[in-house]
Amino acid sequence: MSDSDDTPRHARHTVFGRQHDRIFERLSSLDPDLSDYIRDFAYDTVYDRGGLDLKTQELLACTLLLTLGSPDELKTHLRGAMLSGATEAEVRETLLFAAPFVGFPKVVAAFGQLKSLLDGKQQP
Amino acid sequence: MSDSDDTPRHARHTVFGRQHDRIFERLSSLDPDLSDYIRDFAYDTVYDRGGLDLKTQELLACTLLLTLGSPDELKTHLRGAMLSGATEAEVRETLLFAAPFVGFPKVVAAFGQLKSLLDGKQQP
Amino acid sequence: MSDSDDTPRHARHTVFGRQHDRIFERLSSLDPDLSDYIRDFAYDTVYDRGGLDLKTQELLACTLLLTLGSPDELKTHLRGAMLSGATEAEVRETLLFAAPFVGFPKVVAAFGQLKSLLDGKQQP
Amino acid sequence: MSDSDDTPRHARHTVFGRQHDRIFERLSSLDPDLSDYIRDFAYDTVYDRGGLDLKTQELLACTLLLTLGSPDELKTHLRGAMLSGATEAEVRETLLFAAPFVGFPKVVAAFGQLKSLLDGKQQP
Amino acid sequence: MSDSDDTPRHARHTVFGRQHDRIFERLSSLDPDLSDYIRDFAYDTVYDRGGLDLKTQELLACTLLLTLGSPDELKTHLRGAMLSGATEAEVRETLLFAAPFVGFPKVVAAFGQLKSLLDGKQQP
Amino acid sequence: MSDSDDTPRHARHTVFGRQHDRIFERLSSLDPDLSDYIRDFAYDTVYDRGGLDLKTQELLACTLLLTLGSPDELKTHLRGAMLSGATEAEVRETLLFAAPFVGFPKVVAAFGQLKSLLDGKQQP
Repeated sequence: MSDSDDTPRHARHTVFGRQHDRIFERLSSLDPDLSDYIRDFAYDTVYDRGGLDLKTQELLACTLLLTLGSPDELKTHLRGAMLSGATEAEVRETLLFAAPFVGFPKVVAAFGQLKSLLDGKQQP
Repeated sequence: MSDSDDTPRHARHTVFGRQHDRIFERLSSLDPDLSDYIRDFAYDTVYDRGGLDLKTQELLACTLLLTLGSPDELKTHLRGAMLSGATEAEVRETLLFAAPFVGFPKVVAAFGQLKSLLDGKQQP
Repeated sequence: MSDSDDTPRHARHTVFGRQHDRIFERLSSLDPDLSDYIRDFAYDTVYDRGGLDLKTQELLACTLLLTLGSPDELKTHLRGAMLSGATEAEVRETLLFAAPFVGFPKVVAAFGQLKSLLDGKQQP
Repeated sequence: MSDSDDTPRHARHTVFGRQHDRIFERLSSLDPDLSDYIRDFAYDTVYDRGGLDLKTQELLACTLLLTLGSPDELKTHLRGAMLSGATEAEVRETLLFAAPFVGFPKVVAAFGQLKSLLDGKQQP
Repeated sequence: MSDSDDTPRHARHTVFGRQHDRIFERLSSLDPDLSDYIRDFAYDTVYDRGGLDLKTQELLACTLLLTLGSPDELKTHLRGAMLSGATEAEVRETLLFAAPFVGFPKVVAAFGQLKSLLDGKQQP
Repeated sequence: MSDSDDTPRHARHTVFGRQHDRIFERLSSLDPDLSDYIRDFAYDTVYDRGGLDLKTQELLACTLLLTLGSPDELKTHLRGAMLSGATEAEVRETLLFAAPFVGFPKVVAAFGQLKSLLDGKQQP
């Protein structure tokens, strides 16, 4: 499941960054077939289509995960959005934009994940 | 509620295009306060923040409405995305991108709205 | 399933009003056990607890159905709220109140059901 | 996309029955890539795993679509459940079983789809 | 964002009680614009409309948050309902009332939040 | 609420196994009426209908709870499925089957609950 080559060739390498192998190891520990489906279909098929730039895809992913209420995946993709070229300000805009569509409670929860991510980064 | 000035000054003029006044007339017929809140908060406050380009906002809006299962609003914003500079191909990418996150049934329904929009446009 | 006695004894008689028997006949045509569970558990057990006044219960029901996106049941309980003593203004307040929690699209859809109900009533 | 061979080899042939080609033609008219993903991933990868019998899979599909509120797909899989060996009584049990978990409104809507399916079948 | 004046003038002062400033400080630490939107739109515009009494609004809020699955906000508004004049019994009625509409799991989770709130209060 | 007789007579005895009394004691500590409704309606009425075998019911329950995002109840019914005769492999198939319908994030969360259950079992 991990790639022997150091060069990122897939969107997932950029999105997950240095956590790439850890994320797929955890998925594989949950269920190997689940992990393969996520890698092969979600990432190497859908993410790698190339019709949208990766930054836009990651902002869409943050919106989808905010709506679903999946806090761990949201945190991963808030980080992934910034690894794909989004500024913190653009990520904040994306979360705020959802409020009139899905209401404040889901947006507050999403900003909680963002704060947790940013606070964690500031630690030495 | 309608603006006497022809020049679009708000995101909502671009997003709704020639249907702007019709849309707010319908909202007002549902409830005048509801219509005002949507115009003043959702559009003139959140949409007009300016931190994301309007095309990205509309792709986010399509994703949010696909997830919510709001077919009429989705159709309006599929149109709005294209009025804001997204190509049909980019709109299709946006809908396909949601599949691994929220599953196929909601994506199929969204493409049904897109087909209805595109078929309607082709009529003389 | 219908009650031979004309006197309303259950909350469901007030909520459904003159549509009581028609509603349970339709439910029974869908599935007799489903109809019995709705009558015996949802109405004659939960609705009839008596710890909240029926008007408050019906405003809660409208909120729940707005959130669920069940348009037919919502219309029935918008009517039920008014049959239980809520004014049209109070029903409008209830729908507007949901907007910051669940976003505008679901509230717009709910006002569409209210408009349909009120328009239908005005017909001779 | 359609298979030249008359013999069903995939779960989708049993689930969709005589509507197989029509369903994939419609999906393809919505978006060819969407149609391919549904055929190749949802059906020929996940449905064809073989770890559960097809009847159980279809009852699970009905439950998932009842919960999602996707009426067209639900109707297709209510039919698919019966084409996969479930009796009408077992389909009814499956829908009733969901009530304590997701509430009555979604179950009532699902029985509406079942009634529509069964009524349609009885027509000459 | 905090009000220098001790006298509650807004619904949010009653709903949040002594936690008012702490709640808005936390929201502001998440995102200052988010905090302002919640204060200005959700509370000082929608909550302060005055068309429903605050106790009814808070019971509606509990229902909305039970349905959304937002545990922290639910706990805040379970407390808010009681600060707005609802008895514990009325709050319990409100949560039980949701069961036939949205199913038991969400209601069980809501009672878990209520128990946590009530247990916390009993501590010296 | 607990049964004096050791012999399981209800589906709930098999589904909950040795945790039966603990589960209902906790429900009763949340709210006695809630506990009674779950026992009398959800279990002794719906679960005990007898139209589907208990293993199938539990796989349906896992699907419903995966979709609802109720982690504690999901874990209880993942265990319940295995106590009702499902193999671990069948439980995994059930969770994987949901992915094309509801997307990967909910399925990943469900496998997290399964891993937690299986890891807990392996401890001495």
